[in-house]
Amino acid sequence: MMAVKLLPPADDAYNYPLLIKQLLLSAERYAGDNEIVGGNNGKRYSYAEFVERVHRLANVLTEAGVKEGDTVAVLDWDTPRYLECFFAVPMIGAVLHTVNVRLAPEQIVYTMNHAHDDLVLVHDDFLPLIAKVQDELTTVKGYIQLTDAEQAPQAPMTTIGDYETLLAAALPEFDFPDFDENAIATTFYTTGTTGNPKGVFFTHRQLVLHTLALASTTSMNDNMQLLQASSVYMPITPMFHVHAWGVPYVATMMGLKQVYPGRYEPASLVRLFATEKVTFSHCVPTILQMVLSSEKAKAIDFSGWQVLIGGSALTEGLASAALERGIQVYTGYGMSETCPLLSTTWLPQNAAELSHDEQVRLRVKTGKPVPLVNMRIIDENGRFLPHDGEAMGEVVVRTPWLTQGYLNEPQKSNELWENGWMHTGDVGSIEPSYTLQIRDRIKDVVKTGGEWVSSLDIENLISQHPAVELAAVVGLPDDEWGERPHAVITLQAGAEVDYDGIVAHMQQFIAEGHIEKWAVPDTVKIVDEIPRTSVGKIDKKRIRSELAGD
Amino acid sequence: MMAVKLLPPADDAYNYPLLIKQLLLSAERYAGDNEIVGGNNGKRYSYAEFVERVHRLANVLTEAGVKEGDTVAVLDWDTPRYLECFFAVPMIGAVLHTVNVRLAPEQIVYTMNHAHDDLVLVHDDFLPLIAKVQDELTTVKGYIQLTDAEQAPQAPMTTIGDYETLLAAALPEFDFPDFDENAIATTFYTTGTTGNPKGVFFTHRQLVLHTLALASTTSMNDNMQLLQASSVYMPITPMFHVHAWGVPYVATMMGLKQVYPGRYEPASLVRLFATEKVTFSHCVPTILQMVLSSEKAKAIDFSGWQVLIGGSALTEGLASAALERGIQVYTGYGMSETCPLLSTTWLPQNAAELSHDEQVRLRVKTGKPVPLVNMRIIDENGRFLPHDGEAMGEVVVRTPWLTQGYLNEPQKSNELWENGWMHTGDVGSIEPSYTLQIRDRIKDVVKTGGEWVSSLDIENLISQHPAVELAAVVGLPDDEWGERPHAVITLQAGAEVDYDGIVAHMQQFIAEGHIEKWAVPDTVKIVDEIPRTSVGKIDKKRIRSELAGD
Repeated sequence: MMAVKLLPPADDAYNYPLLIKQLLLSAERYAGDNEIVGGNNGKRYSYAEFVERVHRLANVLTEAGVKEGDTVAVLDWDTPRYLECFFAVPMIGAVLHTVNVRLAPEQIVYTMNHAHDDLVLVHDDFLPLIAKVQDELTTVKGYIQLTDAEQAPQAPMTTIGDYETLLAAALPEFDFPDFDENAIATTFYTTGTTGNPKGVFFTHRQLVLHTLALASTTSMNDNMQLLQASSVYMPITPMFHVHAWGVPYVATMMGLKQVYPGRYEPASLVRLFATEKVTFSHCVPTILQMVLSSEKAKAIDFSGWQVLIGGSALTEGLASAALERGIQVYTGYGMSETCPLLSTTWLPQNAAELSHDEQVRLRVKTGKPVPLVNMRIIDENGRFLPHDGEAMGEVVVRTPWLTQGYLNEPQKSNELWENGWMHTGDVGSIEPSYTLQIRDRIKDVVKTGGEWVSSLDIENLISQHPAVELAAVVGLPDDEWGERPHAVITLQAGAEVDYDGIVAHMQQFIAEGHIEKWAVPDTVKIVDEIPRTSVGKIDKKRIRSELAGD
Repeated sequence: MMAVKLLPPADDAYNYPLLIKQLLLSAERYAGDNEIVGGNNGKRYSYAEFVERVHRLANVLTEAGVKEGDTVAVLDWDTPRYLECFFAVPMIGAVLHTVNVRLAPEQIVYTMNHAHDDLVLVHDDFLPLIAKVQDELTTVKGYIQLTDAEQAPQAPMTTIGDYETLLAAALPEFDFPDFDENAIATTFYTTGTTGNPKGVFFTHRQLVLHTLALASTTSMNDNMQLLQASSVYMPITPMFHVHAWGVPYVATMMGLKQVYPGRYEPASLVRLFATEKVTFSHCVPTILQMVLSSEKAKAIDFSGWQVLIGGSALTEGLASAALERGIQVYTGYGMSETCPLLSTTWLPQNAAELSHDEQVRLRVKTGKPVPLVNMRIIDENGRFLPHDGEAMGEVVVRTPWLTQGYLNEPQKSNELWENGWMHTGDVGSIEPSYTLQIRDRIKDVVKTGGEWVSSLDIENLISQHPAVELAAVVGLPDDEWGERPHAVITLQAGAEVDYDGIVAHMQQFIAEGHIEKWAVPDTVKIVDEIPRTSVGKIDKKRIRSELAGD
């Protein structure tokens, strides 16, 4: 730290902490007639009603015994009441645990105990599960029932009451206190392929800064007006997953019309899109694919819908199909540990003149880092690599909205933060225009003769052989080169190819300068099926182990 | 402070301070081919060149002996090199003092001594002044010459050298350190009608937050796209005055094309507007009036120019004239103490359907507070008043970018900050739509029988009498009512009116509900001339004293 000029203030009132309650200040001012709509039960709230409900909820929570520093868990679909929790829980100084309801029951129990949940708000759909495991929940002191029905059905366990009845009985005003902006506001769990879920957590300061940075970029590009005063926002990334990418905080601060779709059923998503005139959503590629291919989507004109894709790579095929249906698709990059936004697609000013194919290629890129994000790529020795579009390195970041570590996991936290940078575990290259392209996961990249080879790049090239259905590439230890790439492939029905055929196919890409000759796999094994993990991803760990055991 | 949940971090790298250097991170990434243009000498810089010049300047400053906590003063017109100082000076941990070159020489000396300026960057135009007073500058250790000529003219005093020569000789890279975000980044002086100028100051954290809040609102309203990727920005509020309202930081963060006009001469401003295709500017009403009425402006099509007006009230007449010329005018509200932005005009979604007169009335309002601004109006006992558009009270604010106080003026600082709010000294009313309307200065409002009467409102109504040229209203002590309003007026050439005539004229406004009957002045005095201050404002202090002495 340098000795900089700091003056003693005349009064410390100027020292205004960044708190989530401040995001509500402008909500009503900008909202006008905009509503917050629940796809779960058809209820519609004005912003004045929404703000009053946040105050009522704060009274309900404190009457239920929630104190500063306590943790309040929510198990719900995407609803306006979840948005109320996004505000009321942290605004009273408690921590909001957005429980991932897609986890296996034993993992849900693990995360709820690990986060020390004190009070649990639980939707009817998850009451049977919670009733069954409640003896295993070691820290929970009470439950509030969330229901979409007019009359709450009988709960299979003792509860404090149902949300709407409690809200109706609560006082409509709560005096939200000031406190340290570094207080934890939210926590949730990220799932790896192995081991227990890891808890990440974000402070009030971090969420306010993430909101402002997001707001400052979502409408500054003339060619991608994601969020504007006239926008209608509908999340299609669950609210339990990284606060639905933080967009609900932005949309509320801006007073936009918001539509919360409840459960994600393609027919109901398409219906809400059309009837509520949705203009902006975000989702993983699979959901967009599901929506586009649904029966109900066939008759719908999707033009004017802006969709930000993240979570996994947007393929050129899906981007092209979406554009053809009038959907403006973009890619965002980030992860649970990063709040999440790090970078988004950036369209140049002449975007309208670009061909369909050029549009597709631009939109599948992970784009440019947003303001305040410091992003570099580093080699294995931690040295910065050039932004030449060629050099591949691990993506490391600094920005004011990164998780401090994993909840109660000091060792994993130390691995996340090394030498002052958060290590994403992703391998990418950065173009001279500062556009990031994610190339691989660091555990999958093949390190051969001091060079990094992207397993994904090689898989893509091998897959272009007409006989190949699917390809997976892994690195295996090699005495001379450290590692060498090896491939396993499945074939198209009735097609045939051998190792020499694959090598011959790869020669054209070497000749065209797409890859170096050392990127050609040493072996290619034809298999009936490529191993996959429980969530459907290619299981490279198992492939490595099977090939090594050959 | 509440006991909230704070966890010990695994590593403190996550604790990323908000520093001005972070605003530069996205500048080059977004800029593409955008340039920073100097109207002073016709030079044009790419963003890569600009960033390199910031690094070179940091080396020049440290080689000149500037250390963390030192103060660097700049006396210059609006130039790209001033923008370089906006970044390089605070980024090395020093304080940038933007000297108000319009002050009288003795006031310039006062502010430079009061701010403890260590190094001074001074334009040729101000060298004679500085040479003359240099013996009175008690803290200054050196001078750097700023010149618009290719070859720097001989300075009338010893200097370290001229800016461009020093930059050319400096190393192109500087390793900007991290430090406390509460370090002071900038200081400058606000001038009252009496007494010495008062220094306000802003920290890195405050300027970063002001930048983000400004960026998040300047393009979110579909009907007022002030700053977008395609925008061309030209300030017409001096860079020494509240950092040109903070917009240069926003424009740089967003990588926009920027045009710095040098001195403000109407012909050159109009030429730069036209040749550089400027889309956004901000200025005081007088400058807009000057530009519009200049000879050069007559042949110019101003459509597409967005102009934010602040500093003093935008009249309906000027707003109407600007709109007729195709200029989209808006009002901003703030002051030196507030960094400055607090609120801006807010056009509703149906703005395009509004009549010309409705447009004018909307745009002259001081608008809605921007995100994170907490704004209230209070009565004399500090009680919050309702937002009904009627109740008038002092405007008080909280937001993370308010000066902590006046530099080395503890008593004045305590008056600025009372009960946790910054007191603006302005009297306003707030509509149910949260639109603020400034009605008066608190020292000029007439407090009669427990009610506040806006002297400006009464002046406006009296001025509508056909015989009246100008009206001024002040409050004078009254045993029964506390204060009562009294007016002085000047008459149109050859016209006549007496007290009863004015009272009769006011009856219609009472009948229409515009004012209450107690707002009618007790006396109306006809004078040849209404006293004015040195800067041309109506001198209410003198009027009060003259009327009281009658």
